[in-house]
Amino acid sequence: MMHIDSQSIEEMESRYRANFFNTISGFKSANLIGTADKSGNTNLAVFNSVIHIGANPPYLGFILRPTTVQRHTYENIKETGFYTFNHIHESFIEKAHQTSAKYERNVSEFEACNFEEEYLDQHKAPYVKESPIKLGLQFEEEHLVKANDTILVIGKVLHAYLDEKLIEADGTVNLTKAGTVTISGLYEYLKTSKLEKFEYAKP
Amino acid sequence: MMHIDSQSIEEMESRYRANFFNTISGFKSANLIGTADKSGNTNLAVFNSVIHIGANPPYLGFILRPTTVQRHTYENIKETGFYTFNHIHESFIEKAHQTSAKYERNVSEFEACNFEEEYLDQHKAPYVKESPIKLGLQFEEEHLVKANDTILVIGKVLHAYLDEKLIEADGTVNLTKAGTVTISGLYEYLKTSKLEKFEYAKP
Repeated sequence: MMHIDSQSIEEMESRYRANFFNTISGFKSANLIGTADKSGNTNLAVFNSVIHIGANPPYLGFILRPTTVQRHTYENIKETGFYTFNHIHESFIEKAHQTSAKYERNVSEFEACNFEEEYLDQHKAPYVKESPIKLGLQFEEEHLVKANDTILVIGKVLHAYLDEKLIEADGTVNLTKAGTVTISGLYEYLKTSKLEKFEYAKP
Repeated sequence: MMHIDSQSIEEMESRYRANFFNTISGFKSANLIGTADKSGNTNLAVFNSVIHIGANPPYLGFILRPTTVQRHTYENIKETGFYTFNHIHESFIEKAHQTSAKYERNVSEFEACNFEEEYLDQHKAPYVKESPIKLGLQFEEEHLVKANDTILVIGKVLHAYLDEKLIEADGTVNLTKAGTVTISGLYEYLKTSKLEKFEYAKP
């Protein structure tokens, strides 16, 4: 095995290091985050950092890098308090990835990338109509990472929309059956196949 | 599509809700975190919450739930300042899952679950010898989530160990080739296959 130490990491070319560390953390979730400002101008952006925070009450988090693109999502969430997570299905990975391009503030990625906005049950943020699993969230709290100015944004899940057939008897949502993809790094989208489902482990 | 609202979420049976929300966030990374206390007693635990925080300097985070098992990992990190991430390879998912069992404080999951401890380059925490991709980290900062007492733990990557052949020309680590798995929820382990690798997106 090759040993890469702190010195070698520092000496890596910048894009090389970004690719290396964006992939080496392991596989990631694949969601489109939908928002709108208070005038109703919408925004849609791919995020690979949605994580589970808790089930009762249901909290999910995501990491916001200090970049222009992601800031539109952040500003809208802070402005309205609401947002949506929409699973990326394998049939639209190319369009989903395109939402990561640096569109101007006045351009909606829904339109630019050809996704259909959908408003459901008075939730003040748009869902992606094409998505097989959609969640409506309300902002709860945020944490600024001092080391590099990224932000952990945490929200409470108020609504979930999905085909009933995707939910197994024990409450598990079958993501493989849903066609939800996983992401490696910043550019690669993958499908999954089940190896094994274990039980609750005991010593 | 079925609509599950806040009322329905509250009324879910507790394990059902846990399974639902642990799966609905999307696919997760699969790592074993290795630690030791200052007397050298080791601990190993499966975590599905390792996330990318930044590449320069390289920071990775993980979420610690307020449970007994995960607390051993936390106590050791706070005691020594060092820990390791070790990718879970598809050949040892059963043993890896077994580390989630509630072993007593004085039991090392390395021994109980049949993993080999490995110390490399003076790093004060044990690696998993069997793992194809290993990272040595130093604690950097933590954030307590007020909503439910989970903790985001962030560390700086000091060392990386992997087969050179897994690193592509642009710095990407090929996780599928490495045999690294992904996790859905708390119990299911999956392998991946590449759909597409895109370029940096432009408007």
